[in-house]
Amino acid sequence: MTDTPRPNALEALAVAPRARPSIYPPQFAQRVAGREKRALGDPFGLKNFGVNLTRLPPGCQSALRHTHATQDEFVYVLEGTAILITDEGETELRPGMCAGFPAGTGNGHHLVNRGAEAVLYLEVGDRTPGDTVIYPDEDLMAVLGPDGWAMLHKDGTPY
Amino acid sequence: MTDTPRPNALEALAVAPRARPSIYPPQFAQRVAGREKRALGDPFGLKNFGVNLTRLPPGCQSALRHTHATQDEFVYVLEGTAILITDEGETELRPGMCAGFPAGTGNGHHLVNRGAEAVLYLEVGDRTPGDTVIYPDEDLMAVLGPDGWAMLHKDGTPY
Repeated sequence: MTDTPRPNALEALAVAPRARPSIYPPQFAQRVAGREKRALGDPFGLKNFGVNLTRLPPGCQSALRHTHATQDEFVYVLEGTAILITDEGETELRPGMCAGFPAGTGNGHHLVNRGAEAVLYLEVGDRTPGDTVIYPDEDLMAVLGPDGWAMLHKDGTPY
Repeated sequence: MTDTPRPNALEALAVAPRARPSIYPPQFAQRVAGREKRALGDPFGLKNFGVNLTRLPPGCQSALRHTHATQDEFVYVLEGTAILITDEGETELRPGMCAGFPAGTGNGHHLVNRGAEAVLYLEVGDRTPGDTVIYPDEDLMAVLGPDGWAMLHKDGTPY
């Protein structure tokens, strides 16, 4: 906690990108290399949900394809074109388009930038406790505990 | 509940605006007349938070100035210029700017469109139960119960 005064408003792109690297095991981290996330809710003291302004350079993925047990997610594309991949296949997301991923469906999703320009989008996720993330295409799961996320093999052994 | 299949993605502006009128007592409802809200999270089955694409024509307010007891709020401006009014005064919100309003501060906020063009913005709010909304400038409060919002005078008597 800091005593930084809360701003009244922010230019979203002027917020510093998150410095923390991906918590994926190294064999997966390359897929999200270059991804930038600017946390927009935290500077205002929001606690119930997070909002990121996320930038994917060409060739970058938003995340490994995944599904949450208890937390909902939502994305709104501002610039560029992303390919949304779910169990239903591929859907093009252009500026002004949005998609939502309710908790508990088991239907994995991620965004992939196959275009020549960066994709800029807003992503919202709540902070319901007890979340688990399943990555249907990999031997990987993430469990949210009191000290943050633990990355595990699907048999529960740690990476 | 309906059996409408969930979309993979949506053009946000193609979502039909909410048909329900404001629940404000008539003497206040005029201030938000013309406001359009498109619910973007509900069609995907999101439950933990809501996302609206909201359009304020010139002269329109987002809401009466208000503060939530348990629910956080966030806004991101897409088009037009809104004036954010809080206890700190007025702040201009231009496209690409955002603001967040944590629960429980008592610091009321709203957006006012004093420009010549419409303001288009995204607003996010979670659905933490037990919420109460206080309108610091009016004899008005709203209490969230099992049947929805009740609009009350500050002494607890209903409108």
